[in-house]
Amino acid sequence: MAWARGLNTIRVMPLRQTVDSAAAGRAIHARMGELFPLCRSISGEGLRDTLRLVQRDVPLDIVETPSGAQVLDWIVPNEWNIRAAWIDGPDGTRVVDFADSNLHVLNYSVPVDAVMSLDDLREHVFTDPRDPDLVPYRTSYYVERWGFCMSQRQLDALPPGEYRAFVDSTLAPGSVSYGEAVLKGATDEEVLLTTYACHPSLANDNLSGVALLAELGRVLAAQPALRFTYRLLWLPGTIGSICWLAANRSIVDRIRHGLVVSCVGDPGPFTYKRSRRGDSEIDQAVAHILRANPENRVLDWFPYGGDERQFCSPGFDLPVGAFSRTPADQFPEYHSSADNLEFVKPEYLAGSVETLLEVIDVIESNAGYLNRSPFGEPQLGKRGLYRGIGGGSSEEMALLWVLSLSDGTRTLLDIADSSGMDFHEIRLAADRLEAHDLLEAS
Amino acid sequence: MAWARGLNTIRVMPLRQTVDSAAAGRAIHARMGELFPLCRSISGEGLRDTLRLVQRDVPLDIVETPSGAQVLDWIVPNEWNIRAAWIDGPDGTRVVDFADSNLHVLNYSVPVDAVMSLDDLREHVFTDPRDPDLVPYRTSYYVERWGFCMSQRQLDALPPGEYRAFVDSTLAPGSVSYGEAVLKGATDEEVLLTTYACHPSLANDNLSGVALLAELGRVLAAQPALRFTYRLLWLPGTIGSICWLAANRSIVDRIRHGLVVSCVGDPGPFTYKRSRRGDSEIDQAVAHILRANPENRVLDWFPYGGDERQFCSPGFDLPVGAFSRTPADQFPEYHSSADNLEFVKPEYLAGSVETLLEVIDVIESNAGYLNRSPFGEPQLGKRGLYRGIGGGSSEEMALLWVLSLSDGTRTLLDIADSSGMDFHEIRLAADRLEAHDLLEAS
Amino acid sequence: MAWARGLNTIRVMPLRQTVDSAAAGRAIHARMGELFPLCRSISGEGLRDTLRLVQRDVPLDIVETPSGAQVLDWIVPNEWNIRAAWIDGPDGTRVVDFADSNLHVLNYSVPVDAVMSLDDLREHVFTDPRDPDLVPYRTSYYVERWGFCMSQRQLDALPPGEYRAFVDSTLAPGSVSYGEAVLKGATDEEVLLTTYACHPSLANDNLSGVALLAELGRVLAAQPALRFTYRLLWLPGTIGSICWLAANRSIVDRIRHGLVVSCVGDPGPFTYKRSRRGDSEIDQAVAHILRANPENRVLDWFPYGGDERQFCSPGFDLPVGAFSRTPADQFPEYHSSADNLEFVKPEYLAGSVETLLEVIDVIESNAGYLNRSPFGEPQLGKRGLYRGIGGGSSEEMALLWVLSLSDGTRTLLDIADSSGMDFHEIRLAADRLEAHDLLEAS
Repeated sequence: MAWARGLNTIRVMPLRQTVDSAAAGRAIHARMGELFPLCRSISGEGLRDTLRLVQRDVPLDIVETPSGAQVLDWIVPNEWNIRAAWIDGPDGTRVVDFADSNLHVLNYSVPVDAVMSLDDLREHVFTDPRDPDLVPYRTSYYVERWGFCMSQRQLDALPPGEYRAFVDSTLAPGSVSYGEAVLKGATDEEVLLTTYACHPSLANDNLSGVALLAELGRVLAAQPALRFTYRLLWLPGTIGSICWLAANRSIVDRIRHGLVVSCVGDPGPFTYKRSRRGDSEIDQAVAHILRANPENRVLDWFPYGGDERQFCSPGFDLPVGAFSRTPADQFPEYHSSADNLEFVKPEYLAGSVETLLEVIDVIESNAGYLNRSPFGEPQLGKRGLYRGIGGGSSEEMALLWVLSLSDGTRTLLDIADSSGMDFHEIRLAADRLEAHDLLEAS
Repeated sequence: MAWARGLNTIRVMPLRQTVDSAAAGRAIHARMGELFPLCRSISGEGLRDTLRLVQRDVPLDIVETPSGAQVLDWIVPNEWNIRAAWIDGPDGTRVVDFADSNLHVLNYSVPVDAVMSLDDLREHVFTDPRDPDLVPYRTSYYVERWGFCMSQRQLDALPPGEYRAFVDSTLAPGSVSYGEAVLKGATDEEVLLTTYACHPSLANDNLSGVALLAELGRVLAAQPALRFTYRLLWLPGTIGSICWLAANRSIVDRIRHGLVVSCVGDPGPFTYKRSRRGDSEIDQAVAHILRANPENRVLDWFPYGGDERQFCSPGFDLPVGAFSRTPADQFPEYHSSADNLEFVKPEYLAGSVETLLEVIDVIESNAGYLNRSPFGEPQLGKRGLYRGIGGGSSEEMALLWVLSLSDGTRTLLDIADSSGMDFHEIRLAADRLEAHDLLEAS
Repeated sequence: MAWARGLNTIRVMPLRQTVDSAAAGRAIHARMGELFPLCRSISGEGLRDTLRLVQRDVPLDIVETPSGAQVLDWIVPNEWNIRAAWIDGPDGTRVVDFADSNLHVLNYSVPVDAVMSLDDLREHVFTDPRDPDLVPYRTSYYVERWGFCMSQRQLDALPPGEYRAFVDSTLAPGSVSYGEAVLKGATDEEVLLTTYACHPSLANDNLSGVALLAELGRVLAAQPALRFTYRLLWLPGTIGSICWLAANRSIVDRIRHGLVVSCVGDPGPFTYKRSRRGDSEIDQAVAHILRANPENRVLDWFPYGGDERQFCSPGFDLPVGAFSRTPADQFPEYHSSADNLEFVKPEYLAGSVETLLEVIDVIESNAGYLNRSPFGEPQLGKRGLYRGIGGGSSEEMALLWVLSLSDGTRTLLDIADSSGMDFHEIRLAADRLEAHDLLEAS
């Protein structure tokens, strides 16, 4: 990496080009393999263990908010921990076992040890209506109940008789944890990158985000210079972002850009959901990068989804969008045992890293400029800026676009959008013009 | 009906749901049957008799403006009354008779009693170029002449010879009449609902409007509470709205919404023509309701048509649009004997009533709100606002939309448009949130 | 022509209707025939002779800017003059001769008289990669070199052997010339009409512009009254507009509208490129006129092309667009011997004159008005403004549009665009209303 120190001097190479994204994709997938078996939830040791694994890549702090605390409009729930859970059938054979897959237990299930008829057991068993072979992922954070998840086919095959249901869990005062890492840049203005980290053995939703953010943190920390301060958050969904916002109201004004990252390992094209503002610079930057593939989608704000709901709540109204490949709940494997490590592939993770680095390149180096020779077109030939180019080349056009529109009212990203050219080409043109004193920061 | 008194408290039921629209459609059609034979014009006893019939439903005042009066840029014309009119043929047989259909006489025809050749008679006979079997409707309000209307087929079959044309009418100083009824609401802000009432035996254009407005007035008067004051006007076209505007310049500033209603009994989809402003709340409200059927059309302002020309003239520029099914002059039966009581059906009138009540529901209950818990999403579960709903339901989404966008810059109608949801769902969500102190009037 | 003196009184006839455009097209084509053989460049006697020929139509001043002068960011180059140039083959036959076509010499070629092998000669010969039979047009204004142009077929047929290349030219201090003519109108506000005049024997690009501007100047000078002052410029490309801007910085604020005219003799539909501002009145006026043919195109600003680059550079940012039929470099004959007098036809030139006169008619007579009877619709019938028209006629609709929208915030051109009617119809309606005291200048 070789960014010059100043913000408006020539960039030799964009961040994206300094990273071997294929290797990054493989590294993310390998991390996901380690994280996969842990039984995460919105609190508890599984979540803490996950954050500890991420600490190998990023020196994050594990922040605890005690159960019962008032956070914004919410009360922090009790902490949930689980050691074992199973159902034994009439003949004593084990029907399902938490040890095989943590999806088998209703997440946040209260403890139970009871013998009952199949009919009574059915009241506590969840299956996946979409596919009789899949085990669904179900939770009950805020209503106390116990339960199990299994495939519809398995449930249908259970013989009548006495079943023993056993859950060895605790739901008791403790705390909700999240991970936070801050990478100081040249300015106090912040880029917020978050993911939720509360799902158990589910790969795309949302281990892909957890592991990709770890890799992104590693890559950013390796840079000699960054314009923005980067704040990375691994949050249990909803309650985690609410805890963080409650504790950091004095910080939110520094947030210049933000992305909630999730579901970045599936084969789908990218989907970006705009911030509530709809026209913040991060919205413009992601839309600019995503237009490279017409299958990518940019959606207007809607008030359901992930933690962007909290960051964009009207009191905060932060410039935070949601970045994913196929959004949660729009791929068939969502919230089931099919969302596993085979579904998520290193090459898709690599593409996600690459695209996010392109976005970061844009926000890091976007700025407004003033043409210092605004009366008539400056004579580029005498400065060698036409040398070896030939009329009408893309490089020459980029120079002319920057000169024509750099009047203090537009950023380079605006110019890229107006011209239909890539931001990177426009950025390079601005660098060349600045080096010849034809451009200055506005 | 059970609207709570305040404007921003829970509405139990929208106005539209309190009305049996099918019964309303039948009632309107029945009233049209009584009104049909009267020979209306822009002045005279036929117009007054029409207003008197409407008085059975709505206690309207009949307002007279004397002939010769200066009203805005216009002079009120002489009053026209007619008792009889006919043509007798060479053999003494009656060719056409006003007693059979008032369309046979040129509306505002001056008196005549003369014998003449067929060729001379032709100079005074109007036929319908679109269909040789139809009798056209023709007028000559501001140029004094006499004339008759008949079908082209009848005219072509007339034998040569001497004809006697007889019109027993008077065109003399009197007055122009209109009907006005005011229903006081909780505020002085007004909703203006008008129709023109000057056409003789024509059903869709415009008896459908005359009778529908009578029914609407009856329904509105039956409500225990209304936010706006409703002013209903039955006007002779052009001169009537000009007389009213001339007499009520001090009132126009109170008009918050207005609709000119006509041609509401034919089978066509709805057409709304925006006010001159183009973006007034009534324009938004009608467009919102009409989007339920993609065949409905919303047109931008144009300066020809009905009385909206006067209300939207640049000196007044009122928020008044024009509401119809197929607009006047765009259905083949327009201004001919085919625009009769068979063409207009109770079910189409019922649909028009229903749609207008939906519009009134929107304007009555639209308002802007403030999310009282704007930092993060309020915990809906602990308030029972998720109870029995299930994630992603339409009711839950409406709650989230209202919370997300209620920042004092948007009304519920804006939120309905942004979300793509029905205003009614958004309104109910706001009621529920307000009941839980999560929302307050802005 | 019969424009009344004031700006806001009735125009009897638009400028376009006073001109026989077919005759104008033939006259332009004839002038092009005289201009064609001259060897123009960005300086020198060929350019001056061209300006002198134009002086027969328009009393232009020939303005000289000396070589070496600093003009804005540029240095005026040395002046180029050429007397002869040829290549002789091994057997002494003449291969190409400047006397046959001035395209055969690289424009701005330095002198040479040398004998060399065919291989060495090839280094100095340019051909047209698009068509082996065409002689290309090539220049080297700012890098000193010598060269010739011929068809690829001719080059391929040259036998090996010794060739003599001879160019009798001078490149020495002198000046760059341009032509300027000013036609005083009723106001000091200016319309700038420019073309570039630096191409040798090329017809559409850009003799068509040179000769059409001469004709336009002649036509405008024949008018008894014009609202604007017209400034016509025949400029060598780029350096000419830069010289003019450098010398006239105090004048540019008077420029209300401007057009760079070129490539107006080919059979293509019209293309207009908006000024950098994008929404100046000239942009609106040309777009209005061009919408008559859906094949015409209106392009957003882009910072490459002709002299509009200089006029619209951000320091000046003038309301100057570029008007052409097929833009330079988008027709196959561009910059080759195929862009000749046969390619350009009088009827296409006539259509260009007509369209430009329509544009001038719009800008000359566009203005904002106030409806003097804004409360209600004025009674047009009593003023004879409906007389002989019949409801719904185009003339009546134009009256109503002007009355409805003349509120001081819109010009007649805005009204024409809102109504979808032709500017001319709207202008006539305004004239009629003004004559009846229903309209006044705003």
